[in-house]
Order: sequence, then C-alpha cells, then structure tokens
Amino acid sequence: MTPVPRASAATSPRELAHPSCDEIRLEGVLHALSDPMRLRVVRELAVADAEVACSYIELPVTKSTTTHHFRVLREAGVIRQTYRGTAKLNGLRRDDLDALFPGLLDAVLAAAEVQSARLAGS
Amino acid sequence: MTPVPRASAATSPRELAHPSCDEIRLEGVLHALSDPMRLRVVRELAVADAEVACSYIELPVTKSTTTHHFRVLREAGVIRQTYRGTAKLNGLRRDDLDALFPGLLDAVLAAAEVQSARLAGS
Repeated sequence: MTPVPRASAATSPRELAHPSCDEIRLEGVLHALSDPMRLRVVRELAVADAEVACSYIELPVTKSTTTHHFRVLREAGVIRQTYRGTAKLNGLRRDDLDALFPGLLDAVLAAAEVQSARLAGS
Repeated sequence: MTPVPRASAATSPRELAHPSCDEIRLEGVLHALSDPMRLRVVRELAVADAEVACSYIELPVTKSTTTHHFRVLREAGVIRQTYRGTAKLNGLRRDDLDALFPGLLDAVLAAAEVQSARLAGS
C-alpha cells in the first residue's frame, strides 16, 4: 500500500505564520486595533463568533488594503487565518487574547460600541 | 489699585492644544497606547496619580523623542499637559477616558502589568 502524501498543517506552504501566545505583545495588539478598518473587522468577527471569509466583511477600501489589514491583525495575534480549500477563513483569537490580557478585548469592543453609538447620534 | 495682568489659561500662547472629549477617538487612544515608551509613560502617570514633569519619567530615548511621545499622548486625549511657570506638567485624563470608554484604561493598564510580569519572569 502506497502511503498517500498529506500536507501537514505545519509544513504546508499555504500555512500562514501566526505568533504563539508567548510572542503576542500588548503594544502590537493595540496597534492592530488602532485603525478604524481593522477595528471594524474585529467587531464583525466578534459578532460572527465563527470563522468567516475575508469577503464576508465588506470594507470601503481596495482588496489589497483589506488583505493588508487582515495581515496586520494576524501578525499581531488578534486573528487566526486558515486556508480551507481556496478560501481563507478568519477567526478572532478571543481565547488567546482573553488568557493573555483578561478583559482587554471586551473593553475595546465595548468602547467601539459606545463610540459608534455616540458618533451615529451626533 | 492697578489690576495685575494675569495670563488667562485660555488665551496664553503657552496653552497647549487638547482635544475636547467629543474629539477623542478610540482609534487615536489605542494608537497612542500602542508604543512601549508611551505605554510606560501612561503606567507611570497612573501610579503617580498626580501631575508630574516630563523629566519625572525617565525614558531610554532622546529628549526630543520623549517630547514627541508626550505630544502624541496629548493629541490623542490621553494626557493633559499644562505649563506651570517654566515646567510642563503632565497628568492622565483618567476621568475623561473613563467617562468616554468605561473600563478601557484599566484593562490596558492591567494588561501592561500582566505582560511586564510575564516578560520579567521569562
């Protein structure tokens, strides 16, 4: 019986680099969240509470800028991006962030909510 | 009796520009906090719980870089800088930030504390 070659998740060229929890830094997370488009992505992922394709979240920017924002979020440790067939799926690393910085993500999401309501009402 | 001329805080040329609460944006606050030096300033101001001179907080950077970091924090609405005679005093705008984004500053300060302990222990 010939062994069927399988692409390991760890060695696949389509595996994207993610920081381990040890490598995630507060400053990087705050920087990733400090952009209006990236903050919007994070809010939508928090609501979706599931892995979604980039195209699920419509941003008023070009596709390449969208790709850039997702990469910044991934490299900071805020989201996880995985390939499923031809689709790139995105999910919030909520458990990792909550373990590293308890309460931080919730506080940022709540603050974003408050600000949205304030700006919509003004 | 000759009135003693007094420099009004509102009209003094040495009055520094600060965003009003309406002008403070979450993204700007997060960006201001996303730098290690600025995060350190904010942590020290939180501990000091008083207005302190820039020189009170020693950063391993040049004086002009220090001045830059304090300006970014002021322009984002994170700190208030006021002249008292020849000294420029700095204080955290904790009340304003807590009113705008409840829990955010505390969550960031707690996260910074956790990270410091983790990095010191590793």
